Amino acid sequence: MTSKAIFYHAGCPVCIDAEQNLAHSLDPARYQLEIVHLGEQKQRVPEAIAIGVKSVPALQLGGEVYHINYGASIQDLV
Amino acid sequence: MTSKAIFYHAGCPVCIDAEQNLAHSLDPARYQLEIVHLGEQKQRVPEAIAIGVKSVPALQLGGEVYHINYGASIQDLV
Repeated sequence: MTSKAIFYHAGCPVCIDAEQNLAHSLDPARYQLEIVHLGEQKQRVPEAIAIGVKSVPALQLGGEVYHINYGASIQDLV
Repeated sequence: MTSKAIFYHAGCPVCIDAEQNLAHSLDPARYQLEIVHLGEQKQRVPEAIAIGVKSVPALQLGGEVYHINYGASIQDLV
């Protein structure tokens, strides 16, 4: 059984690199990966803020949020 | 064939959580994971700095360094 992992990004170069290299390196046998582009899906920004996303790229995994390097503040996407 | 991923940490709570939850979530079919505790293996601090580690926890993957949240500055481990 897989659990869900959500990768939040905003299309920035730092985001794209982290998506290609890190998010897609998760074990597909254990994680079902969803990619959310907050610049294109603004309606999901409040959800991201609610779970603790402070900047992008960020990965929600196992109930925790991991901020990976720094592309942009979530406040710039509101 | 697997490539190498190195997770650098210093034993801090942020580090331990990222190790358990994120580093061990990498696909074992593609990545061979090495865990380096820089507090206990001080001789590897220069190597970490050389590849661009600025804080821990950090993950080297595919030639890039990903800083994951923030536990401690690499300078505190020199």
